[in-house]
Amino acid sequence: MAAAFSVEGVEGLPEISAGDDLAAIIAGAAEFADGDILVVTSKIVSKAEGRVVEASDREDAITAETVRVIATREFEGHITRIVENRQGIVGAAAGVDASNAPDGTVLLLPVDPDASARDLATGLRALTGARVGVILSDTLGRPWREGQTDIAIGAAGVHVFDDLRGGVDASGKPLSVTMPCVADEIAGAGELVKGKSSGVPLAIVRGLGRYVGDLDLPGARSIQRPSERDLFRQGADEAYDDGYRAGFDEAQAEGSLRERPDFE
Amino acid sequence: MAAAFSVEGVEGLPEISAGDDLAAIIAGAAEFADGDILVVTSKIVSKAEGRVVEASDREDAITAETVRVIATREFEGHITRIVENRQGIVGAAAGVDASNAPDGTVLLLPVDPDASARDLATGLRALTGARVGVILSDTLGRPWREGQTDIAIGAAGVHVFDDLRGGVDASGKPLSVTMPCVADEIAGAGELVKGKSSGVPLAIVRGLGRYVGDLDLPGARSIQRPSERDLFRQGADEAYDDGYRAGFDEAQAEGSLRERPDFE
Repeated sequence: MAAAFSVEGVEGLPEISAGDDLAAIIAGAAEFADGDILVVTSKIVSKAEGRVVEASDREDAITAETVRVIATREFEGHITRIVENRQGIVGAAAGVDASNAPDGTVLLLPVDPDASARDLATGLRALTGARVGVILSDTLGRPWREGQTDIAIGAAGVHVFDDLRGGVDASGKPLSVTMPCVADEIAGAGELVKGKSSGVPLAIVRGLGRYVGDLDLPGARSIQRPSERDLFRQGADEAYDDGYRAGFDEAQAEGSLRERPDFE
Repeated sequence: MAAAFSVEGVEGLPEISAGDDLAAIIAGAAEFADGDILVVTSKIVSKAEGRVVEASDREDAITAETVRVIATREFEGHITRIVENRQGIVGAAAGVDASNAPDGTVLLLPVDPDASARDLATGLRALTGARVGVILSDTLGRPWREGQTDIAIGAAGVHVFDDLRGGVDASGKPLSVTMPCVADEIAGAGELVKGKSSGVPLAIVRGLGRYVGDLDLPGARSIQRPSERDLFRQGADEAYDDGYRAGFDEAQAEGSLRERPDFE
């Protein structure tokens, strides 16, 4: 039998407010079995955690959530800010979102999405008796591809990678660098039933129990590439400008007769 | 009823060789119904199209498939080349792959993955009578996230985006920039059953018929961001170095008394 799985949206959830017990609400809205993976739109976690600020502060909120600006550019009157946010995620607008937020407000991401996922998985396992995994998803753009996909910003009780390094392919050759990020793929699959306009914030993925594990597995933070391995830690324009200034200053400091240093 | 879909791997395919009629082979290996989406690992399309070269030419093959080098860096003795390939896709190694290739060879991507997808969808629709969509998938890394996900490098008979621009969210607010790339999310869902080591090159996605459409819909090439909207068309180091050289030369040409020009 070939592998198979299913993804189903969960409807009928009440509007979530600060202080709500999400695990209890979700356990009451759906059935869970061992090996199920719950994909939760991070927005409802933000709402339960009270991560809501006044909409008039949207730009301030983005700035406050930003650890590092990577690139800024204006397209058609709209300024795009690609930043690293407090959660370590690189994306537009630091995860600050006005859509699906209560009127006059914007939503911030959960402070620690892996901890939120762990709380939810712990609660769901206790309430349902089922060994479930939890992925918190958010919608992110990509540098070289149009549109967005949902990715895992938090995870608990799920292997975020299917680590094939050291394994072999079907013809016996080593899969030396292959490490599919299954958590991101599962988050994307969840988006296909949750949708942005439907108000369905949950999806249950059944049949991928091989990726479900203990609650102390590494979370989605482990997906973030460390800066020493990041070839795109700055936008091309920003890096060029920094280089230009450095080169200009260096040439002036050295006087105009010195050869430009050669470097790779 | 909440939305739901299923993903199933298709086993039992013979080893594919140059000149094979993929549509006929696939139509013989699985049942199709209207609205099904077939996710095909691009490798078997490459094999059917004879896109195989001698392994001794791997580095040459990468160079030949490269249109533009974006970033190069050595990590732990392994050189990573991020390039734009002939298909317009930005990724490592230009899509040249040694895994799952016949011994002593490497596989190149199909010359025109959208055309390959269209041929396959046309053939499958004719052979099965079912209105199916086809996505050709490949495995790609991401600049800021570890691991890889499968994405759509070719598509036919499928809407690659769920274009929500101009629509509203569940609370009635405009979804001004939201355009989920469902083709990439479906490709990723397919990877979860196909796997890298299992030798399962096909997945059938059932229940997402709302994304299936005519064969002349825009293909996966429409997902590629045009260069004028690309903030990361060069690696940070490469852009810095180019800027440094330009700034140094400019300062020398102008003489050492001129102020460094200020620019944003």
